[in-house]
Amino acid sequence: MSLVVVGSVAYDGLETPHGKVDRILGGSCTYISLAASFFTRVKLVAVVGDDFAEADAGFLSSRGIDLEGLDRVPGKTFFWSGVYSPDMNDRTTLVTELNVFADFKPQLPESYRTEPYLLLGNIQPALQRSVRSQMNGVRYVGGDTMNYWIGDYRDDLLSTIRQWDFLLINDSEARMLAGEHNLRRAADKIQRMGPQTLVIKRGEYGAILFHGGQHFIVPGFLLEDVFDPTGAGDCFAGGFMGYLAQQGVHPQHGEIDHQVLRRAVIYGSVMGSFCCEKFGPDRFRTLDHSEIDDRYREFKAFTNF
Amino acid sequence: MSLVVVGSVAYDGLETPHGKVDRILGGSCTYISLAASFFTRVKLVAVVGDDFAEADAGFLSSRGIDLEGLDRVPGKTFFWSGVYSPDMNDRTTLVTELNVFADFKPQLPESYRTEPYLLLGNIQPALQRSVRSQMNGVRYVGGDTMNYWIGDYRDDLLSTIRQWDFLLINDSEARMLAGEHNLRRAADKIQRMGPQTLVIKRGEYGAILFHGGQHFIVPGFLLEDVFDPTGAGDCFAGGFMGYLAQQGVHPQHGEIDHQVLRRAVIYGSVMGSFCCEKFGPDRFRTLDHSEIDDRYREFKAFTNF
Repeated sequence: MSLVVVGSVAYDGLETPHGKVDRILGGSCTYISLAASFFTRVKLVAVVGDDFAEADAGFLSSRGIDLEGLDRVPGKTFFWSGVYSPDMNDRTTLVTELNVFADFKPQLPESYRTEPYLLLGNIQPALQRSVRSQMNGVRYVGGDTMNYWIGDYRDDLLSTIRQWDFLLINDSEARMLAGEHNLRRAADKIQRMGPQTLVIKRGEYGAILFHGGQHFIVPGFLLEDVFDPTGAGDCFAGGFMGYLAQQGVHPQHGEIDHQVLRRAVIYGSVMGSFCCEKFGPDRFRTLDHSEIDDRYREFKAFTNF
Repeated sequence: MSLVVVGSVAYDGLETPHGKVDRILGGSCTYISLAASFFTRVKLVAVVGDDFAEADAGFLSSRGIDLEGLDRVPGKTFFWSGVYSPDMNDRTTLVTELNVFADFKPQLPESYRTEPYLLLGNIQPALQRSVRSQMNGVRYVGGDTMNYWIGDYRDDLLSTIRQWDFLLINDSEARMLAGEHNLRRAADKIQRMGPQTLVIKRGEYGAILFHGGQHFIVPGFLLEDVFDPTGAGDCFAGGFMGYLAQQGVHPQHGEIDHQVLRRAVIYGSVMGSFCCEKFGPDRFRTLDHSEIDDRYREFKAFTNF
């Protein structure tokens, strides 16, 4: 049983107060897949150009990620570059070259279509819906979106998330989607739009889970050094969904245990925190399961009273 | 055994998206004392003018707060007014009239000087130090400060907090005081300035406790309605210190139990959250102990995993 992940695979140019890289593997699908790969088998769906390096494909494969759904087409891979502010709370985009990603029309390989878990990275809502419709018998589906789709593609987005079990967005996006500043009331409204489970990401302040009339709040991990925050939200999504897939959640067989969702939020937070410790997705080259277990225990230790 | 609280007693004009009051009881000493009064006996030190209403003194007395240290002098009571932004994350000061507070030289009544607990609201560091020196055999002392004193009275402030057991400030103030953006490293630096216990308040995002090489993070309570956030930080301080006084902490008799400090942070958060539910300090007119206990349990429920 695998998790299908759809989104962008890209190259990023990054500059933070800790340094600069001109070109490093990036994209939502990359971060989600790498983070999830520590919990479950991942099948990736994305498009890259003929400049995509074998070493990068090799890195993904080394994490057991299935690349049958990685479409390689003539042209250049999606490229983005940006510079972070000194406190890393803001970033300025320098370059966005969609390249082959502009014509991304995800087609799932036959072997992907019967998998039970689907995580839709932040792409156009109509594409997310198209992927959902290619899956037969999916048990649990959810994804991410962003302010651009909420503002300019609202109807499209609403008919997309209506089919989702969970939605993962940040706090300003949740407020925008609900048209409501108070997060508790915003969450009520969003849950009525479809997703029974809502996770609101708050960056360095952690995350809130809303599910079944309850909520759970976890603070962010206090890193000694935030090296590069790129991809942390996607790694949260990957850890969250990867853990649920590992646990074999199956809502059609009755309500999901709220405690399992809480633990999924912690694993999401754990993976997001590791992501920030090196440039791009480099931390996942060396991360091992004992480090994940240790950090989970640290979350217990600094929140328990 | 009582807690001595020093700070301002004022009248405030407040405007939030929920309404407007022209003149309501306020000031750091008022909020701290009211919040602490649910845990321990409080002795207040402040100055007011001859316009100070008997009804307001009556409210404080009704909470068992000792007003022997409330100096009533000719002139007007400190007046402040401000307007909150629509999301209540920012506020604009309209009027600040220091009035009799401009000449505040706190003199402790004899009956206050042997009390074991002292909480210094945000006033000039030299005045905080003068109050500290009037207390004999104080067991546990701490307080609040603000960006103005950190920037313009730095040496004065440093020699003041050197004598404190704990310091309670917000995250931007902590970064400013330490000259360090990363909160973990900022906390290390501040603890080396004197206070063994540091609590960093993060507004709606909760608080972080640093003590003895450990840290504890609590998220903020998700209110359905934030009616008026004025005084929430002071109520946090009052709940925190009130609980420690109730528990009879005595660091000279050995290290304070870290778990007691964590619970104090929760009670601080509980009192700060109640404060926001009505204008000014009005929520404390009706609050009872069972509501405090219930909210403490809610904090457990929404943070436990």
